[in-house]
Parts: sequence; structure tokens; C-alpha cells
Amino acid sequence: MPIPVEAFFIDRTSPVPLQVQLRRQIVEGVTEGRFRPGDRLPSSRRMALYLGVARVTVAQAYAELATTDYLTSLPRSGHRISDRIEGRITTPAPAPDTPRLDWQRHIDGRFARSARTDRVVDWRRFRFPFVYGQADPELVDHIAWRECAVRALGWREFIPLTADLYGEDDPELIDYIARHILPRRGIRARPEEILLTLGAQNGLWLAAEVLLGRGGRCAVEDPCYPGLREILAMTRAEVSALPVDTHGLPPETIPPGVTTVFTTASHQCPTNSTMPLDRRRALLDRASSQGFAVIEDDYEFEMSFAGAPSPALKAMDAAGTVIYVGSFSKSVFPGLRLGYLVADPTFVAEARALRGLVMRHPPGMLQRTLAHFLSLGHYDAQMNRMRRVYAERRIVMAEAIAENGLTPASGGLGGSSFWMALPPGLDSRALSRDLRGEGVLIEPGTPFFATAEDGAGFYRLAYSSIGAGLIPEGIARIRAALRRS
Amino acid sequence: MPIPVEAFFIDRTSPVPLQVQLRRQIVEGVTEGRFRPGDRLPSSRRMALYLGVARVTVAQAYAELATTDYLTSLPRSGHRISDRIEGRITTPAPAPDTPRLDWQRHIDGRFARSARTDRVVDWRRFRFPFVYGQADPELVDHIAWRECAVRALGWREFIPLTADLYGEDDPELIDYIARHILPRRGIRARPEEILLTLGAQNGLWLAAEVLLGRGGRCAVEDPCYPGLREILAMTRAEVSALPVDTHGLPPETIPPGVTTVFTTASHQCPTNSTMPLDRRRALLDRASSQGFAVIEDDYEFEMSFAGAPSPALKAMDAAGTVIYVGSFSKSVFPGLRLGYLVADPTFVAEARALRGLVMRHPPGMLQRTLAHFLSLGHYDAQMNRMRRVYAERRIVMAEAIAENGLTPASGGLGGSSFWMALPPGLDSRALSRDLRGEGVLIEPGTPFFATAEDGAGFYRLAYSSIGAGLIPEGIARIRAALRRS
Repeated sequence: MPIPVEAFFIDRTSPVPLQVQLRRQIVEGVTEGRFRPGDRLPSSRRMALYLGVARVTVAQAYAELATTDYLTSLPRSGHRISDRIEGRITTPAPAPDTPRLDWQRHIDGRFARSARTDRVVDWRRFRFPFVYGQADPELVDHIAWRECAVRALGWREFIPLTADLYGEDDPELIDYIARHILPRRGIRARPEEILLTLGAQNGLWLAAEVLLGRGGRCAVEDPCYPGLREILAMTRAEVSALPVDTHGLPPETIPPGVTTVFTTASHQCPTNSTMPLDRRRALLDRASSQGFAVIEDDYEFEMSFAGAPSPALKAMDAAGTVIYVGSFSKSVFPGLRLGYLVADPTFVAEARALRGLVMRHPPGMLQRTLAHFLSLGHYDAQMNRMRRVYAERRIVMAEAIAENGLTPASGGLGGSSFWMALPPGLDSRALSRDLRGEGVLIEPGTPFFATAEDGAGFYRLAYSSIGAGLIPEGIARIRAALRRS
Repeated sequence: MPIPVEAFFIDRTSPVPLQVQLRRQIVEGVTEGRFRPGDRLPSSRRMALYLGVARVTVAQAYAELATTDYLTSLPRSGHRISDRIEGRITTPAPAPDTPRLDWQRHIDGRFARSARTDRVVDWRRFRFPFVYGQADPELVDHIAWRECAVRALGWREFIPLTADLYGEDDPELIDYIARHILPRRGIRARPEEILLTLGAQNGLWLAAEVLLGRGGRCAVEDPCYPGLREILAMTRAEVSALPVDTHGLPPETIPPGVTTVFTTASHQCPTNSTMPLDRRRALLDRASSQGFAVIEDDYEFEMSFAGAPSPALKAMDAAGTVIYVGSFSKSVFPGLRLGYLVADPTFVAEARALRGLVMRHPPGMLQRTLAHFLSLGHYDAQMNRMRRVYAERRIVMAEAIAENGLTPASGGLGGSSFWMALPPGLDSRALSRDLRGEGVLIEPGTPFFATAEDGAGFYRLAYSSIGAGLIPEGIARIRAALRRS
């Protein structure tokens, strides 16, 4: 690999001769491992021109290093890093004994403290990964995705993608979401009511920051999505955690004075229960009369394969109280990082301005690639394939759960997981640790609850990243672990 | 296009017959323009199965709509939206007269208020766009970029890209930045000292939120990048705006009690001046002794073609006080939305946790595509091409400026713009408005200054998005406008 001329600097105020400065920089690059055997140095002419030094200065530095075996020189091919340097690579020297800035004084650590530490990054190495929210790459049509990327990067389309879009989104993607995605949830929206986000996490954050960034009072479901609790911890809001029952959030428990309510009405996270129609009406009536906003996280609607889904809460929202949070993470793939908000234009304008401050806009290349993936029908085909496979896995899993005498804690119309209860006295954190040794990953219930201990008797088993063939053995291992404990 | 079955819903609690509900939904889809002539409806069998109604119910609804010309039916091809519906498409009905939530009560509008409104989204329609920070698509190697995207989307590499990476970054990209990009700025960093961001804007925001989110005192250059001032307005920090001179920020003007200083040392924004070595040393000495952090926005280092650049401030940072903000927006393309931070690991861990809360991580597909673009040498080639073209444009522009008697306000080692002064008494906002009618876009100086009026006598002329051939005519039009005013 050629070493760029920009890797070198000259300090003209230093008493060290220029030739020596250059030699030192080459030696440092070698000993620190940045320059590797065979890497080609800039020609002495190019280097001299760039640094503004005499060519002979560079030539002398090179010649000197060739005699000490740092460089080799071949006729017409210039100087390269020698392959006899192996023994000279050292770990970087420890920093000299200068006083360091005391960063602890500047950083209160509240973000790092509130972040989850229980997620297993190398989940692929486990044979029975009942992990939630990760994709099964076998189900993603990566050939179609690649074709769409190539189409998005054709010359005509590429030009607008190179631009800083300021606050705008790709009109083609917005149009497709308005005309083809939202109607599946019974939602009608105009372009100014839709904002693209960097995934649902980003949508929830934007909503929380706009509505609660300076304080206020909000309500969340208990248990709920742990990422939401982390987001709210960043704001100055007072948070009421309202226990859910088998029909989700009971609207009559929402305390007076609350200005914002977060709900996963169609698919409660993590219990998977669906809020019935009468309760939805009651929730929206209360929102109108008490004057609170409802943030609906519709995170997994595409996976309601066990029966026709009901429309989103947003579809019944005549008073315009609902901010709808959608995502393509489950249906396309989680690493995509694209989602959307649907809400009143006043809210969307404010969230758009905040998004602009924080990151401008989601990358144009991804927006356009997704627009093609949707409009060419790949999304529908992939969705159908996923639903078929998930439905099969769910049946296999339900059977294995019954056969092994494990206890599901609630039902639901599909989704990608079971919410499970433990026999009294057992702790899902201990069970989870024990099972890792068996190659089994489960998710303890504790991070979902406002009071972690409330979740010790629960765990989540997802089937989105484990094949049907492995499910019975994985479940059997959970039973074995339960017997041991 | 086939209409997905998910676009339809049945409300079983409604007194309206199921068949009528279905008909109404199809008619609404047509009149609202969501369903278009030729769109195919799901088969009656599929629809009945999905909605859980009798097949005859669906068949009746379809037959009824065929007699009223909403649908056409062809043997073996099912029902499609008729092409005789043209006159029936209406604008969506106004919302019924329900009370709406009063969003103004929930939203204080501080983000929308602080966002810039002077940016021209359709700048491409102007013949002489002296706009800053947008790419010239002719200079971007879009074929190479597309090849890199295709490579990143091959099956083996695609698997990790589909995943939710939690807090991680692509190790290949981090490695490349550490070994090949940062050394060009004289910076040595280990992987745990580097964090990917969604562009420099996102990097500045993360730094501001971590260090100043709960208040504090900071200093910025005056004039400075307007996006930074917007970011700081979001925090609770007290901001001191320190006037720059021809050598950038004078360190002796930093008031006591400041905990964070923002600087564009290598390329002051917008004046383009470069901070000399002795002033850099004085700034870092002060940072060590007063204990403040320095945020270095090195936004345009690749474009220092008019002489060898000096190393970054971060390269001299023995005490570890500097947070370095880098970006690929100028050197790859602005719509990419990828940049990076280099800082003390304590800071990086906290910023990483904050990034996770707000958006998880920059999309994996972009990270890997960029890693290929860099490591295959396309970045260097593109950089060289850009520098050559910009250097040429700069010469043409300097000549045109001199010939037309315009006044540059400061110099610099290249970059992509000139910072210009107006004759006394003139206002660059009025000049900018006047020039739009002539097809010329310039940037008034006002948004750059803490007190907007201070910038009325300045304007910025960028040459990154205008070809050399158009520059003389564009400059001549500026002179003509000045004569008129």
C-alpha cells in the first residue's frame, strides 16, 4: 500500500534538522506498526515538493534508512518499507509523564451509567441464541437489497444523494410510506406529517426530547422497552411506571398531570399482549380530555401473523393526539437504522429541527435504497417469507415449551418472542448465566421493569435468530437448567 | 402494482355490515389516490382468509364495485382498479370537526426557532451557486463508491451488517482511520479513542451534550460555524463568543471559569485563517493549566492544497485535553453522513453511550462501504482530484475577485471558499437577495456572528459546487450588483 505524503510533517521552529525529523517520522511509523513491510514511500521529488524542503534532504533521509534496513530501494520502483523490520515493531511507548486533563471532572457519566450492559454482542457464537431484535440473515433478501443499492447509486440518482439535504427527506421514500406502508395500519398521513428517523430508538428519543427535554410528567408501561427508560432518564421528566395487565396499559391508571404517555398498544413490549378496541378508545378519549400526547411504538406490526392485526392506535386518532413511531429494523434488517414518525405537523416541524441539530438527516443513500426495496416489491416478499418462517418457528417453540413444562406468561398474535414465567423463587439472571455455559442465550426479565427485581421471575425467548431445527434442543436445555436450580 | 391485503381492516364491533366496510375502504383508497388505475386487489380467497370473513362477503363487495366502475374484472386475472375512476380522485376530506390536541401547549418551539432558515435547498437550480458545503458530483467517483457498496453487500460481509451492533463500530473502518487518516494529521489513536459519528454536526452535538448538557461555561470563536451556535443553544451552557483575528482565536481572551473551548484552529470557519504554532502551544498550555477541554473541529483539512498543512492541534496534545472532530463530508460527499471523534477513552465511552441512546450507531452498510472506499485507494484518488480542481478554481476566482475589485477579508491555505468584505454601509443580506434574481447564490455573513449585525459587512463565496468556467461571470455579476446598490 502506498504511504500518502500527508502522513509527514515538518516543524520549522524545531532545532532538529529537517532530514532527521523526516527519518524519525518514518522510524516511528514502522515501530508503531502503521507502516508495514512492502508499503511504498512517496518519491523524493513528491515528498520534497509537499514538505517544501530540498529534494536532497529527502534523498539523504531515505538513503540513511536504507543502510539501517528500515527501507529497501529498487531501481525505478522507489523506496519501500523493508521486510527485515519484523523485530522492530513495538507496542506504542507509554505517554510521557505529562499531567493529564482530569476528564472525570468534566463528565458525570450519566449516559454510560444508564446504558445496558447485559447485551451479548457475540450472540452468533452461541448455538441456541434466543435473542431478540437481531435478524436471521437467511431471511433477508440480500441480493435484492444489493440490486436496490446499485440502482440508488446510478449516476442520475446519485447526484441528489451526495448532497447535504439540510432538513429534507427523500420524497420518494416518504411518498411510498404514506401510500403503501401506513395504510396497512389504517393510517392516513400527508408528507408534512412524516419524518424519517435513524430507527425507532431515534424516533422515541426525538419525541422524548421535544416533549420532555425540559421536564414534565410522563407515563410508561411497566414492564416496557428498556431503551425507552434510558431515553427518559436523559430528560428531566418525572416518570410514572404503570403496570400492564393481559390487555396492556389500563388507561384509568394514568395519573392526572401527565403530559405524555408511551404505549406499545398493538404488541406490548415485552409481554406481547394486544390492547383491545374498547381500551384503545378509552385511552384516546382520556388523551383528548386530559390533553396528553400518546407516543405509540408500533415496533413489530409486520409480524402479527397469527390473525389479522387491528389498525394502529394512530388510525383511530381523530383528535391528533398520537405520535406514531415505526421502524424497518424488524422487517428489513436491524442494522439498517431507518424508521419514521407520523404526527401532527407542528410536532414534526419541531422534531425535524431537532434532528437537524443532532445529525442533519438519515443518509440519503440508505433512504433511496430502501425506497427501491419497497417499491419493487422486495419488502412484501421478504415480509411474507419472514411471517411464514416465524409462524413455523412459533409452532415448534410452543410445542417444545409445552412438552418441557415451561410456563408462557402471556399470549399475543405472533411477534417474534414468548414472554415466560419462572417457578417461584427462581431468578432469571442466574438462569441466564447458567445457560450461557450450555450455549443457550435467554433474556432475563429484569431490564424491562422499573424495579428490576419485579422482573426476576420472567424471561424472554425470541425465535427471530434461531432456526426451527434447533429450538427443541434449546428449550430442553432450559428445562435441564431449571431442574438443576 | 398489487395492493397488499394488509391495507384492509374490519371492525367487528361496528354496526356497519362487513361487506359495506370493505367496499368503503376500497372507495376511500381510490378517492384519496392511494389506489391507482390498474392496481390489483388481493384474490377474494386471500382477502377472506386474511380478514376472517366469508369468501362470499368479499366477492359481493368486489362485484358491487365492478358495477359502479370502481373495479374491472378479467377472467383469471382477478379484480383491478378501473381506469375509469379518473374524475373521482379528490383531495382528502378535511378532518371532521373534532377538538384537536393543542400541540402549542406541548412544544415550546425552541429547536425550530434556532434552526437556520437561510439555506437554499434547490441551489442546483441557480447558475452561479457559490454555496458552501455541497459537493460537485463531477468530482465524486460514484462508480468506485458503487463498487464498494456492492462489495460491502456481498453475502459474507452482509451478515454482520444486518445486525444491531449495539454500541460497536465497524472495526475495519476504525482500523483504517487510526492507521491511515489520523496520521495525516499527526494524530496517533487507539481504537478505544475513536468513535464514529453521523457527520461532524453529530460529533459536535455529542461533545456539547456530554460536556455541557447540564450547563457550564464555554467559549466559541466569533464568527463561527452557525450549526455550533444552534447546538449550544440546546444546552444550558453560558456561551462566550471570542472575536478572532487573522491568526484565529487569541488564547489569552479565554475567560476564567470556561470548561470547554470550541476552535477551528487549522482552518478558521468562516475566515479560513490558520492558527500559528506558537498560538496553538499557548492554547494547549492554557487548557492544561485552567483545566478546560478543547473541541477541535478539523472540518476541511483535506483541502489545504495551498501549502503543506500543519498537524492538527490534537497532534500536539500531550495532556489529552483535545476532542478532535473529523468528517468525510467534504472529502467523500456531504450526504454520506459519516464522521468521527478522537478523544480520551473516558470521553469516548460516555459519548458512545449517548450515541446509543439517541440512535444506536451509524448504519453498518455505510461504515463498511466507506472502509472499502478508503482501503482500495479511492479516497486518495478522489482527494487528489478534488485538490487539483479546487486549486484551479481558487486561482480563477482570486483573479476574478481582483479584476472586479472585490475585497477578500482573509487568506488561508486553500479550503473551498473565500471570506469577503463589503464596502462600508452595504448589507450582505440585501446583496444576497438581489443576486438571487441574477442566478447567483452567495452566503451573507450574518449567521456566523454571535451578533448577526456584525456580519452584515461580510459574505462567503465557495467554489466547491461551481465550475471554473462559470466563476468569472458569477463574480462579474456580484460587482454589477454592488454598483447598483
